[in-house]
Amino acid sequence: MAVHEVVVDVMLKPEILDPAGQAVLNALPSLGLPAASSLRIGKHVELSLEAEDETAALELATKMAETLLANPVIEDFRVRPRHGG
Amino acid sequence: MAVHEVVVDVMLKPEILDPAGQAVLNALPSLGLPAASSLRIGKHVELSLEAEDETAALELATKMAETLLANPVIEDFRVRPRHGG
Repeated sequence: MAVHEVVVDVMLKPEILDPAGQAVLNALPSLGLPAASSLRIGKHVELSLEAEDETAALELATKMAETLLANPVIEDFRVRPRHGG
Repeated sequence: MAVHEVVVDVMLKPEILDPAGQAVLNALPSLGLPAASSLRIGKHVELSLEAEDETAALELATKMAETLLANPVIEDFRVRPRHGG
């Protein structure tokens, strides 16, 4: 059993409005920043857990994401190993 | 000028307490989920912007992150191109 570092990115589904992202998008020009054509804000979760191997670690993280980190009604998530980033 | 998709991940610096992450970490065992040894929650920003090339797009996103997306006093950020994830 080794410790594996995993990243879970949680985003609102594309059809769900993201007021926070919209607010940032609208603020860009008034701050003298270049405009973006879209900008959405989600959650970035970095976690360390013990597992036999990387595949098992990703499975455990997926279980966590499904039941606790993401709301499957309005959010999608992606799980990946964290390799220096 | 083409549209480039960029991801900015914003995390609290390691020395800054993350109460939200700690709450999730503590909730794992009571939900029948495997324990994690650490868990921290940050922001995951996906944006599209027009730029000459990928390097220019990443530079623009870095400028946005420095001035608007992250608070450099308490947060670190990473900028990367978004390739199918």
